[in-house]
Amino acid sequence: MDIAAEMRAMAQAARAASRRLAAAEGSARQQALLNLAGLLSERAADIKAANARDIAAAQARGLDKARLDRLTISDKVLASMVQGCREVAAMSDPVGEIEHMIKRPNGMLVGRMRVPLGVVAMIFESRPNAAVDAAALCIKSGNAAILRGGSEAFHSIGALTRTIHEALERAGLPAACVQVPPTTDREAVGALLKLDEYIDVVIPRGGESLIRAVVEQAKMPVLKHYKGVCHTFVDESADLSRAVEIIHNAKVQRPGTCNSLECLLAHKAVAGDFLPRVAARLGADGVRFKCCPVSLPLMGPTAEPAADGDWGHEFLALTLAVKVVDGLDEALTHIARFGSNHTEAILTESHSNAMRFTREADASMVAVNASTRLNDGGELGLGAEIGISTTKLHAYGPMGILELMSSKFVVLGQGQIRQ
Amino acid sequence: MDIAAEMRAMAQAARAASRRLAAAEGSARQQALLNLAGLLSERAADIKAANARDIAAAQARGLDKARLDRLTISDKVLASMVQGCREVAAMSDPVGEIEHMIKRPNGMLVGRMRVPLGVVAMIFESRPNAAVDAAALCIKSGNAAILRGGSEAFHSIGALTRTIHEALERAGLPAACVQVPPTTDREAVGALLKLDEYIDVVIPRGGESLIRAVVEQAKMPVLKHYKGVCHTFVDESADLSRAVEIIHNAKVQRPGTCNSLECLLAHKAVAGDFLPRVAARLGADGVRFKCCPVSLPLMGPTAEPAADGDWGHEFLALTLAVKVVDGLDEALTHIARFGSNHTEAILTESHSNAMRFTREADASMVAVNASTRLNDGGELGLGAEIGISTTKLHAYGPMGILELMSSKFVVLGQGQIRQ
Repeated sequence: MDIAAEMRAMAQAARAASRRLAAAEGSARQQALLNLAGLLSERAADIKAANARDIAAAQARGLDKARLDRLTISDKVLASMVQGCREVAAMSDPVGEIEHMIKRPNGMLVGRMRVPLGVVAMIFESRPNAAVDAAALCIKSGNAAILRGGSEAFHSIGALTRTIHEALERAGLPAACVQVPPTTDREAVGALLKLDEYIDVVIPRGGESLIRAVVEQAKMPVLKHYKGVCHTFVDESADLSRAVEIIHNAKVQRPGTCNSLECLLAHKAVAGDFLPRVAARLGADGVRFKCCPVSLPLMGPTAEPAADGDWGHEFLALTLAVKVVDGLDEALTHIARFGSNHTEAILTESHSNAMRFTREADASMVAVNASTRLNDGGELGLGAEIGISTTKLHAYGPMGILELMSSKFVVLGQGQIRQ
Repeated sequence: MDIAAEMRAMAQAARAASRRLAAAEGSARQQALLNLAGLLSERAADIKAANARDIAAAQARGLDKARLDRLTISDKVLASMVQGCREVAAMSDPVGEIEHMIKRPNGMLVGRMRVPLGVVAMIFESRPNAAVDAAALCIKSGNAAILRGGSEAFHSIGALTRTIHEALERAGLPAACVQVPPTTDREAVGALLKLDEYIDVVIPRGGESLIRAVVEQAKMPVLKHYKGVCHTFVDESADLSRAVEIIHNAKVQRPGTCNSLECLLAHKAVAGDFLPRVAARLGADGVRFKCCPVSLPLMGPTAEPAADGDWGHEFLALTLAVKVVDGLDEALTHIARFGSNHTEAILTESHSNAMRFTREADASMVAVNASTRLNDGGELGLGAEIGISTTKLHAYGPMGILELMSSKFVVLGQGQIRQ
């Protein structure tokens, strides 16, 4: 069988499995997740042995330390997968839930019942535990999943998938609810992305080039973000001590993530007082600054002039662009021009400015007096997340279980007809 | 300027106008709609004169009566546009609404604020008043609109658009909030559908071939349904007198619409009693029946054997496919195979069967003891609708104002950082 035919067979099996998963009782989906939590611990030795093969191969190919770290399934990573499965299992069953029914003038009840999307494909890089997180969210929400990870995690993902299959089958659900292509051939991805007849949505996670390639090829809708160019505007009324800590957290806590801060906008009235404190606090952690002419003399020894390309740039590193602005209007204009619809924050004590910023900044999360790093499914109360969307169709922001679902209208009548 | 450049300029102007519309007060958007209601009456003579030009041209080209009817802006159609504008104006302002904010363990408030999608393009056929309905929904929801109607309605849509522009400008809003390409050249549509940089979503309304052409060309997401192949299953426990009336309404009330009934599935236990009553009631209105072998002798003088292609066929006429089934399982299997995810109904007194049908029938509306014709934004309580979606991403079913919107996360903090 050629790869295209193999991918078609896989997608057809996923479609058939999705129907069984959606029609199954919530208790079966829950049991599959509890089984998975248990089996991940029981099979820890196998999983780590498979992971060791991937790591050895990656070391031989000279993968850098950051990527090796992401590839490694440590005891801590394993424990967090187990914990994640238990948390998702504990959530109430969303499939078939009706939040609210209205009664129409003709007496019929009208509500919206949550239904799975169907078949979700995820194309991701590195971190093999993403396979388990995604599988758990898809199983809970009644969606079949096709998971295509990076080639460097091939054996790890294989071992995790065998565990997922065992968990599903022990709960009386088809193993085909969660499938992984048997090859890391790129042709397999291309073939999958053509199968809009069977796959309802694709979620790419990884670098911008991976995501652009998926968008270019996919015939089904893509839920994605290309990058996170997050700004924080420090207004003249901001509590500056608190602002230093928020900026520090947003930039330094995990600089390689999409919700970390890339550009600080400071009101001119407080720049002279505030920016040297930022320079001292962040500079001590090795942050370098790309500065506008006004901020340059205020940002200490690691400051250098910003180039044009530094505005709107996603550094993903201990580098921060810094610009002094006249006030909220200029901040909003800068964000409209250079932002990426991901995360924008204002630090202010002005209620009017806070309200205007939340209305006018166009981003999947807008925050007042908080760190951009909080744009995350867990932090925002969605439970786990399968990705983040910076386009407005279907989902805008972190996507949890409910974002993997749709809703259909349910009408309960007693003979109503159209007048 | 060539057409592609002209369409690009139009889309850029729409994008800029969408920002102003979204940032405007709700009272301005409301005022624009009230202005429009008033101006449609004041400008009635101009609008009808423009419409008369289209009608004369259509008659000269020999357009059929049904299409001429749809093209005609009668006093009744004009009054319904005015009424529609007033109803949409009276709705509460959805832009910036936050339904609910949760408080996270760290004390921050998290809510979702409704935001417009941005720029909505609608490609539609015939009925020129659709331009006003769509414009009203887009203005209310803070979206700029690009409306491309059928060439036969060119002058009518032009006159309506001039009225819309006047209504917008009198409310201090840019005319570019609602635009119509200055040509009915097909090249213009092709050019528009490439501009995903400026247009967020396209909604095609019309025949299946129009919709397929849009899907094929569009680079932005498409919200659509191809067709409505709606079934009603009459269970053995159904109230048969009521069932006859529901089936009559679903088939006869307006057979050319996507939510009208195309296939009746009758439980074998009641077929002998029920089907002759259906044959008499619907046959009297000229309905012809395409029958399975079991139903054929029961369906009266207008019955004929169904061909294979009659199952899953959208007749859009006074023709009904009729099949006798063993029970709910066979009905659900038939619907899964031949349905179009549009509207499915069950008529039953069995609570278990009603609940199972609502869960398992996969359609944008599932109804118990009601007519399929009720799958409509107005009937379901959305107010007006801009179209109907039979795919599950973003919207499933009739799309009203809220389906033209997205939501962004709003975080109100007091210094929260990521731990």
